Amino acid sequence: MITNELINPKSIVVVGGSDDIQKPGGKVLKNLIDNHFKGSLYVVNPKADEVQGVKSVRDVAELPQVDLAILAIAAKFCPQTVEVLATQKGTRAFIILSAGFHEESEEGAKLEQQIVDTINRTGGCLIGPNCIGVMNTNYAGVFTTPIPKFDPKGVDFISGSGATAVFIMESSIPRGLTFNSVYSVGNSAQIGVEEVLEYLDNTFDPQSSSRVKLLYVESINKPQKLLKHAQSLIRKGCRIAAIKAGSSSAGSRAASSHTGALASSDVAVEALFRKAGIVRCYGRDELATVASIFMHPELQGKNIAVITHAGGPAVMLTDSLSNNGLEVPPIEGPKAKELLAKLFPGSSVANPIDFLATGTAEQLGFIIDACENDFHNIDAMIVIFGSPGLFPVYDVYDLLDEKMKVCRKPIFPVLPSVMNVKNEIEHFIAKGRIFFPDEVSLGNALAKIYHTPKPSPEAPVLPKVNEKAISEIISKSNNGYLTPDAVQQLLDAAGIPRAGEAVVTTADDAARAAEKLGYPVVMKVVGPVHKSDVGGVVLNVKDSETVRKEFDRMIKIKDTTAILIQPMLKGVELFVGAKREDKFGHMVLCGLGGIFIEVLKDVKAALAPIDTNEALNMIKGLKSYGIIKGARGQEPVNEQIFAEIVSRLSALVTVAPEIFEMDLNPLLGSKDKVVAVDARIRIEK
Amino acid sequence: MITNELINPKSIVVVGGSDDIQKPGGKVLKNLIDNHFKGSLYVVNPKADEVQGVKSVRDVAELPQVDLAILAIAAKFCPQTVEVLATQKGTRAFIILSAGFHEESEEGAKLEQQIVDTINRTGGCLIGPNCIGVMNTNYAGVFTTPIPKFDPKGVDFISGSGATAVFIMESSIPRGLTFNSVYSVGNSAQIGVEEVLEYLDNTFDPQSSSRVKLLYVESINKPQKLLKHAQSLIRKGCRIAAIKAGSSSAGSRAASSHTGALASSDVAVEALFRKAGIVRCYGRDELATVASIFMHPELQGKNIAVITHAGGPAVMLTDSLSNNGLEVPPIEGPKAKELLAKLFPGSSVANPIDFLATGTAEQLGFIIDACENDFHNIDAMIVIFGSPGLFPVYDVYDLLDEKMKVCRKPIFPVLPSVMNVKNEIEHFIAKGRIFFPDEVSLGNALAKIYHTPKPSPEAPVLPKVNEKAISEIISKSNNGYLTPDAVQQLLDAAGIPRAGEAVVTTADDAARAAEKLGYPVVMKVVGPVHKSDVGGVVLNVKDSETVRKEFDRMIKIKDTTAILIQPMLKGVELFVGAKREDKFGHMVLCGLGGIFIEVLKDVKAALAPIDTNEALNMIKGLKSYGIIKGARGQEPVNEQIFAEIVSRLSALVTVAPEIFEMDLNPLLGSKDKVVAVDARIRIEK
Repeated sequence: MITNELINPKSIVVVGGSDDIQKPGGKVLKNLIDNHFKGSLYVVNPKADEVQGVKSVRDVAELPQVDLAILAIAAKFCPQTVEVLATQKGTRAFIILSAGFHEESEEGAKLEQQIVDTINRTGGCLIGPNCIGVMNTNYAGVFTTPIPKFDPKGVDFISGSGATAVFIMESSIPRGLTFNSVYSVGNSAQIGVEEVLEYLDNTFDPQSSSRVKLLYVESINKPQKLLKHAQSLIRKGCRIAAIKAGSSSAGSRAASSHTGALASSDVAVEALFRKAGIVRCYGRDELATVASIFMHPELQGKNIAVITHAGGPAVMLTDSLSNNGLEVPPIEGPKAKELLAKLFPGSSVANPIDFLATGTAEQLGFIIDACENDFHNIDAMIVIFGSPGLFPVYDVYDLLDEKMKVCRKPIFPVLPSVMNVKNEIEHFIAKGRIFFPDEVSLGNALAKIYHTPKPSPEAPVLPKVNEKAISEIISKSNNGYLTPDAVQQLLDAAGIPRAGEAVVTTADDAARAAEKLGYPVVMKVVGPVHKSDVGGVVLNVKDSETVRKEFDRMIKIKDTTAILIQPMLKGVELFVGAKREDKFGHMVLCGLGGIFIEVLKDVKAALAPIDTNEALNMIKGLKSYGIIKGARGQEPVNEQIFAEIVSRLSALVTVAPEIFEMDLNPLLGSKDKVVAVDARIRIEK
Repeated sequence: MITNELINPKSIVVVGGSDDIQKPGGKVLKNLIDNHFKGSLYVVNPKADEVQGVKSVRDVAELPQVDLAILAIAAKFCPQTVEVLATQKGTRAFIILSAGFHEESEEGAKLEQQIVDTINRTGGCLIGPNCIGVMNTNYAGVFTTPIPKFDPKGVDFISGSGATAVFIMESSIPRGLTFNSVYSVGNSAQIGVEEVLEYLDNTFDPQSSSRVKLLYVESINKPQKLLKHAQSLIRKGCRIAAIKAGSSSAGSRAASSHTGALASSDVAVEALFRKAGIVRCYGRDELATVASIFMHPELQGKNIAVITHAGGPAVMLTDSLSNNGLEVPPIEGPKAKELLAKLFPGSSVANPIDFLATGTAEQLGFIIDACENDFHNIDAMIVIFGSPGLFPVYDVYDLLDEKMKVCRKPIFPVLPSVMNVKNEIEHFIAKGRIFFPDEVSLGNALAKIYHTPKPSPEAPVLPKVNEKAISEIISKSNNGYLTPDAVQQLLDAAGIPRAGEAVVTTADDAARAAEKLGYPVVMKVVGPVHKSDVGGVVLNVKDSETVRKEFDRMIKIKDTTAILIQPMLKGVELFVGAKREDKFGHMVLCGLGGIFIEVLKDVKAALAPIDTNEALNMIKGLKSYGIIKGARGQEPVNEQIFAEIVSRLSALVTVAPEIFEMDLNPLLGSKDKVVAVDARIRIEK
């Protein structure tokens, strides 16, 4: 819904523009002027004919046709102003800076809706209200500073908070980050973060578009839209990082099952970002670091050469990289010896490559060339070069810039001497370069990016499930937990293997069922939620006498309506669950069962649908994966079957969105099979 | 060994001082002059009578008596110069900046030793060689910049790397950190990091001494000395943070046992720091943040009020605090309503306290006063205040400074607008204040500090062990693994409860032993290291026939010399181990057994000796602690007994340092007892 008038307006009017540059209306006008907006600029101010040297009219009615209107007037005047502009002046883009709308009162919400209706009716677009504005390579339509350096290959930045956008830019600009566009969406009355992303996706041009997108969001209102366009952009070669603030508040939510407790809405955000391929950040400094990395060529492997003239930071960086799963591999062989000969005595090329405090620009050149051309086990370089303050280092930073132009392998410059060689760093940035002030922040961020998965496939191939049968069972069922019988039918329809079982209400039936299933059997109460805690699970029952005795005891346990009898199976206890999460769709979780979910919370979550490949990655990502592989000489779990069950369960909830939550807990996994032993499914239509 | 002449010299000579300020000798002289050294200053330069306006002599012999000598001459000339100064000029402090000593060659090592011998003989002290120097409130004896602002209450900073010290200062100074002293110890020929810490401890004066110490170390040569003085300083009220670089390299070391594999030397560093109460940092940015927090009053509780004029950073900060175990508790009640009435409509005091973008200095004052006086569930405040660039915020930062002077509760200022209100921030710093540029870095560091334990007690009370018996057993034993018999004796002498057992070499003996211990029994091979993997463990053997059959099978397993028979016990599998770590003494590790150590690596380590309180904290810190407490209706483990065993094992290795490594694996823990079922002890005298 973003219009071309918003992106590249030929004319802009500031309604409420004034000479007071400590007020939004004055400041936004100043920013437009100072940053050389090339089109026609108008002001509406009832008290002036000229404002900051720009012609001002007293009433919007007096304006000529105008593409974009920026409103900095009281909320109550906005609807009428928008009406006139949209219907009489052909205005197709609006930025409303003013507050006092739905964030403040019901009355404000009505004004906001009125404006949106007018703009929708006339085919325009609206940013805000209650925002700092928009800026891009064409104009600086914000009432705040700093105004970053603009560059068509710079960052596209979309923020749900205006002040936070300012602070994020203040963290980013001093490092040399440039921008292509900044959107502060405020109340998102018509255009929110998701719609801006959609626009960037729909208008993406592989030749000319920027490839780095940053998001700051406090609530995700349209998760599926965000997912779709983030995935699409990343598949087209973009890189996206985002902060979703508010990760901790969700934990307090009451939940009625294991899956419920584990699957907080923040887990859904996490799952969404992973499925999209978005790098999730937690603070401004981290976001700026990730963005800075994004502006360099992409890492094609995990082997890093650490190049330094000072030992300490190289060691800290190596710790950070290798503790986070990247490699600082040894460099050896004749080419290494050749390089060493070109450096001062005492230098080391073993990696870290340390060319000493006395190292020169020329030597740095030799090192970079060798890493680029000779050391085939190296995928990228990190160069650490500061100064103790004795002499300038322009020559080194110039060389770095030159090498970065010609090398195929990425080079990340860590320039720690933000005081001693401040001028040299500014000179480096002025060439369009970005620097990293802290090597450990760089190492951590580089590893995080490397380990963020690629977006899941556009059309995931799911196992076939019996959709007709599933729909029939669901439509016959009431809200609440399904009966054991209905659960069995659903699992069968979804192709999820389950243990044979019988649900009995008399001791005679119990004995008969046990006989039929084959001894030894397991007996469980039907009814109580935490069966073990109430003594409602008996393992390894070997004869009919014990079956009868246990039946008599167990049937008296509170809330028990029947007894479930299953054959005694062996294997590793596994867990798979699903939960519907408001607007996100279903989250599917998997892990080992028992204490692994209850005490260690070792689960992985992903948004449905999940193909077996994604499911395998979830399984391999578990901390307890070693047990699935078969630790201590124990039998391993068949990962392929386990993954298929995860995928089938995701297919089931996709076909049956009425499933609010479900657990398969435990499944028993061995090297030949994985079988659901207990399952609960709750319907909420 | 540090002399008063190093700390407060009345006279300094720069040997090798010159007019070339791009060289160390010229630059250190310039720093001394520029920073107003108040005593007598001399230069030795064979080619000049005056250098940078300071009188120069051509030869050291021509000097008068001089307290401190800073040498910036070639290594080969140093011994003779030191000899003359130490024996003829009464010089009792030396800083040798020059490189070319033991870091470079054997010849250099000899020169270094010669110098140390001379200085030791004459009762002086030596910093370096191969360092950037020393600076404190009396003089700036370094050849680098920046020179920080000095303040008797500022940071004492000791660095094992000169360049890293420079870069750490460059990260710290812009935030407003001030220093009391900076020591770059270089080669640590006589004085290393440990000796400086010892000096600071021995000369600590509760009235006048600085209370914040920062360390950067790459190797810990005297861990016990570091531990002793760090603990002592912290007990006196100091706060210490340290980077120990090189945390990742140790993982590759070969190890012959579980304990060996888990107890890398970095685990020893971690254990040392915890025992000392040192906050461990991993990068410059983190160290600067922790130091900045240290310069504020100490957190007395975990409840934080987040005060902000912008929502986003407050939400990110709240996430960081509460995801890391601190609290942002709700603020309610009549006093909260009173406060709310003083703020603009739309403000919130629920915590975060958001007084909106339009919030004033006066309002901030009301908020801080309420947090200080009225809100008793608040222990500290974090104030976030930046600017979108419309008008200056001097009034707000001045108010903040005033409130920080009078409030008992700590106030941490987050000032994100490093560009928009750069001048205001500088003005704030000029008053001696420190600011935090990034709220999430602050939140993470605050939580890390809060969760760093206090130093362990000066004289830990350990359970009594039979020292005489232990010494006898050890003295009779050879290097290598002890026999099962000796292991049992040692455990008995240490008061560690163990399962009854018998070691047998014939099937008849096996059957007899099983009869005596009582069925069911467990049978294990003696000899092979990973018993389970070779089929060398059989559980739940119920009769003599099976005992004989299994004996015949097991005795043929490779490396098996005998069969161990124990009663079949029930309980949670636990693990306690110890390992001697070069110079650190013994590390003791504990956790759950089986997959918990092998797959999940869930262990806690501490340096011996360990009292039961410290052992309890180790146990409570385990990720799997929920199992020890009794998860899923299972019987809990008696933590008190488990802790006592950890403590007894630490007492055992303290009495018997010949124990190189030992495992109790598993112990079986129930609510009444914890019993060692299997143990291995390796002696290396």
